[in-house]
Amino acid sequence: MTQKDLPFSQAEFDRRIAQTRKSMEAHGIDLLFVTDPSNQNWLTAYDGWSFYVHQGVLLGMEGDPIWWGRYMDMLGGRRTCWMTDANILGYADNFVQSTERHAMQDLAVQIKEMGLAKARIGVEMENYYYSAKAHAVLTQELPEATFVDATAVVNWQRLVKSDEEIAFIRKAARISEKVIETAIEKSEPGLRKNELVAEIFHAGITGVDEIWGDYPAILPLTPSGEDATAAHLTWNGNEMRAGEATFFELSGVYRRYHAPLCRTVFLGTPPADMIEAEKAQIEGIEAGLDAARAGNRTCDIANAFMSVLQKYGIKREGRMGYPVGVSYPPDWGERTASIRTEDDTILEPGMVFHFMPALWMETWGLETTETILITADGPAQPFCTTPRKLFVKS
Amino acid sequence: MTQKDLPFSQAEFDRRIAQTRKSMEAHGIDLLFVTDPSNQNWLTAYDGWSFYVHQGVLLGMEGDPIWWGRYMDMLGGRRTCWMTDANILGYADNFVQSTERHAMQDLAVQIKEMGLAKARIGVEMENYYYSAKAHAVLTQELPEATFVDATAVVNWQRLVKSDEEIAFIRKAARISEKVIETAIEKSEPGLRKNELVAEIFHAGITGVDEIWGDYPAILPLTPSGEDATAAHLTWNGNEMRAGEATFFELSGVYRRYHAPLCRTVFLGTPPADMIEAEKAQIEGIEAGLDAARAGNRTCDIANAFMSVLQKYGIKREGRMGYPVGVSYPPDWGERTASIRTEDDTILEPGMVFHFMPALWMETWGLETTETILITADGPAQPFCTTPRKLFVKS
Repeated sequence: MTQKDLPFSQAEFDRRIAQTRKSMEAHGIDLLFVTDPSNQNWLTAYDGWSFYVHQGVLLGMEGDPIWWGRYMDMLGGRRTCWMTDANILGYADNFVQSTERHAMQDLAVQIKEMGLAKARIGVEMENYYYSAKAHAVLTQELPEATFVDATAVVNWQRLVKSDEEIAFIRKAARISEKVIETAIEKSEPGLRKNELVAEIFHAGITGVDEIWGDYPAILPLTPSGEDATAAHLTWNGNEMRAGEATFFELSGVYRRYHAPLCRTVFLGTPPADMIEAEKAQIEGIEAGLDAARAGNRTCDIANAFMSVLQKYGIKREGRMGYPVGVSYPPDWGERTASIRTEDDTILEPGMVFHFMPALWMETWGLETTETILITADGPAQPFCTTPRKLFVKS
Repeated sequence: MTQKDLPFSQAEFDRRIAQTRKSMEAHGIDLLFVTDPSNQNWLTAYDGWSFYVHQGVLLGMEGDPIWWGRYMDMLGGRRTCWMTDANILGYADNFVQSTERHAMQDLAVQIKEMGLAKARIGVEMENYYYSAKAHAVLTQELPEATFVDATAVVNWQRLVKSDEEIAFIRKAARISEKVIETAIEKSEPGLRKNELVAEIFHAGITGVDEIWGDYPAILPLTPSGEDATAAHLTWNGNEMRAGEATFFELSGVYRRYHAPLCRTVFLGTPPADMIEAEKAQIEGIEAGLDAARAGNRTCDIANAFMSVLQKYGIKREGRMGYPVGVSYPPDWGERTASIRTEDDTILEPGMVFHFMPALWMETWGLETTETILITADGPAQPFCTTPRKLFVKS
């Protein structure tokens, strides 16, 4: 008998299944095939670095979900999923990265054996782990089925967090504080960036007290100087230099739950325009937090921030936040609502966003962000207590 | 003017483009759209953690390739790609994770503007970063184009490594030796697994001397005891225990080039069947290395290993290796040839494989592997010098 260490109560998983089935019903879906690893984990607790081969969760309108994947990962499924072994299926290894056969052929056989060859099947059309080829093979193998685009059907159910989930994010936030503190404390001219990132990883995986650190779905983004004008560069072996800003886009993680936090450090004396931008950014975040109230919309947060920026005469376009929670690479965002001027999702208590109004300017970048909780009344609460400022080390 | 620190010579990139175009010609492809981040890097040197949004490389039969992505990542493209800024295109931020518009609509406009609306366009149908939805939108937006499945067209060009690439893999291998050494040295009963993984990350990112450590495309797999019967579990906060084996599936990485290396440590006295399996595994690896000669086939390596295993009466199925080199998450394999009994790829000098004949048994797992170079004559050469054995700490 496998000893399991499930992250959540059965009531929590039951809630998730029930909510998802309600949405399936609204979309006219009989059988949902879930390929997003975050959604798989959320529904079944499956956890493993096996998403580079085809796998997924089959959820019908009755009974427990079924986890389906490579035979050797079925063993991981038995150790991590809450369902019994009968609901964990494995396909043969010669389906893996083969030019002759495709794993979706096996999945189609499974679906037929369930008597669902003519079902309305929901598939996550826009997902890293449901390739164009997978869709082509699955639809060809199940010619009598009707396929429905179920992109984000599960993701939307994840938007409002339960108390159990919020407790996990609070733990992740303790680690986030520690990694940002480590990054700022260690930064100095002459330190090679990879050596700094080694310290960041060490702090994040060690965690805080009994809160052990899991891996982040986005690895450390830590660009300096002009590299920080580009949003998504990782690191190299160059030395940190006086006269440059470095931003840290990091997240502590506890059992796949994230609480991203960004801060910026300047080695030396920051230029006047950066200090002005810092002032605008922090005032804008305060305005955003105040607008982030239950009943308001995501665009209200964005507009509150933008109006402060306009007052300071700073131009900025694009998204400034997204929901976070459970996640797997390559993205820690949930890919549903966005904090942006064109998004009008209504805020509810229990929603958690990474409010991320970074400024990427012509010659430098400045990231100061918060992971925030929408509460029943009052402004949003940041999960972290790290001082909200540009850190200057002269 | 952006200062660039390109990893390779222009001659190396020219070779890659010329080789790819030859394959495009053979496949009847006028325009190749490359979404695999490893392929993008291999062709253009693009490097950033931005593959969670749609992006790619457009390669026609003439002129330099074009990198296309999100506007803010265009700035990263200008800093990392070898092409001039005119060949780096950015799309507006409101295409990102929008329910109203899709980035492939922008790509279709670009392709039309190139006068290629009726071209034969190759797309990587089986790739994490070319979703079913992306394909549906792109084909809809370009009704006069003909779409060709170009999965692995570029990957196959990567199979034989240049001297410049082999030099990078040798650097990665120095780091691999160090991380495995660290993992084994630090392992002891009572140590929490996440604390061990923190040390592994620290060693891998710090690197060796001037060789700075980049991030691996697969994060540390370090399961102990029965968890090691499942191939792809990561880590948790449990203590290591006496009487258990832990395998380490790790890779040093230098500028995205990998040299995976696995070893197993046993805390205490290993059971007799594990010692016997170790003997078989090591003898099998030696037989495999001897069979891994230019002119032989990938299946010859697998068969050589399997015949030793049969002699010992150990049952094993499945793949036991794959080519490695440049890579991005979620997989460090190249997804072309496989070391398995049904694969008959002919070995050539300069090919690099992770020869990975792990044994996942009923109650434990044993991983001892080598990244190997196929040479002009003689058996394959391992890149690492780490002793090939089960490490026992009593």
